[in-house]
Amino acid sequence: MNPMAIEQQSMAIIESELQTELPDEIKPIVMRVIHATADFSFADTLTFTPGIVNRMRALITQGAAIITDTNMALAGINKSALARAGATAMCSMASESVAEIARARGETRARICMEQALSLPGPRLLVCGNAPTFLFPLIEQAEAHRDIPEDLAVIGVPVGFVNVIEAKERLLASNVPCIVARGRRGGSTVAAAIVNALLYGIPGVRT
Amino acid sequence: MNPMAIEQQSMAIIESELQTELPDEIKPIVMRVIHATADFSFADTLTFTPGIVNRMRALITQGAAIITDTNMALAGINKSALARAGATAMCSMASESVAEIARARGETRARICMEQALSLPGPRLLVCGNAPTFLFPLIEQAEAHRDIPEDLAVIGVPVGFVNVIEAKERLLASNVPCIVARGRRGGSTVAAAIVNALLYGIPGVRT
Repeated sequence: MNPMAIEQQSMAIIESELQTELPDEIKPIVMRVIHATADFSFADTLTFTPGIVNRMRALITQGAAIITDTNMALAGINKSALARAGATAMCSMASESVAEIARARGETRARICMEQALSLPGPRLLVCGNAPTFLFPLIEQAEAHRDIPEDLAVIGVPVGFVNVIEAKERLLASNVPCIVARGRRGGSTVAAAIVNALLYGIPGVRT
Repeated sequence: MNPMAIEQQSMAIIESELQTELPDEIKPIVMRVIHATADFSFADTLTFTPGIVNRMRALITQGAAIITDTNMALAGINKSALARAGATAMCSMASESVAEIARARGETRARICMEQALSLPGPRLLVCGNAPTFLFPLIEQAEAHRDIPEDLAVIGVPVGFVNVIEAKERLLASNVPCIVARGRRGGSTVAAAIVNALLYGIPGVRT
């Protein structure tokens, strides 16, 4: 069987086992996350601000920079689909200059990466699959009622046991447009699956 | 908080919530997978052939090639730790020559990657976090009672709904030394977490 046939069969199994009724807009996102994890709990935990899926697709087709907090999430993004959508993806976590700034300021590299992402011009999709500290500069800016750039949206799916639930709930309570996996679960796999599901829903991207 | 302090706090939470009594040899592996996924079900599904953890660490310190079935799993392996352990990691899934052979033969790229991995000389750790077809050439060789190289071990943690459980059970039924996550769950995150846990247990690797 070829990979596309296996994927279709997998999606049919997921659809038949899915216990939750999902709106058309978000269903392909949730199904692809379940496809990547075999974990149906994401049907209950994935949370979407209003209109977020179309908003994220619009940012992507406007040529967004997709900025991830791990090279692992970056590696999981379908690069052919990304190129056809006209967007780019990047991760600066392994950059020596980021490490130097982080050392000098006593902050995490993830925080420095987000600060740099916030200061970039143009449409951005910020993708957090691992380090909640990546989200903190953005959350703090929103909570202080400082302007958040209009052309920005966030995938907030860090995984873990410390600061993770708090960061996700603060992100949801802010006015930042986002997709969040509530609770402890998430990860680079989930982050990449969401980005790929967004890409595949753009006409002409999946050939 | 620095990342290492957060990790120690996370591991303490995992230890306190873990319902399963685990042998000392495998406990750090299981805990790191839970750390990477926040999914305690891996404490019940991760399955280890006898002595496999020490065997895999021996392969690594002998300079094993760690060959993954996704660039995502490869990206998740701690490269500093890998270098200190004296091993290397690689993934040929995106190689154009692999794609050409797969097209010509009507097989998946994952299968070609495994065939190439089996024909390499020297110690090898074969890591499947995604595509069960990566495992098939190895399983077929074992089931046909053809010799499996002595200096080889397998991490079999593909994720999904089609061929996945079957591939894992056939791998466990073969005589190939392996770590397997039974059931549907697994993935690149799980694969990388297992490799990193193996690396961190080697003296001097985690500084």
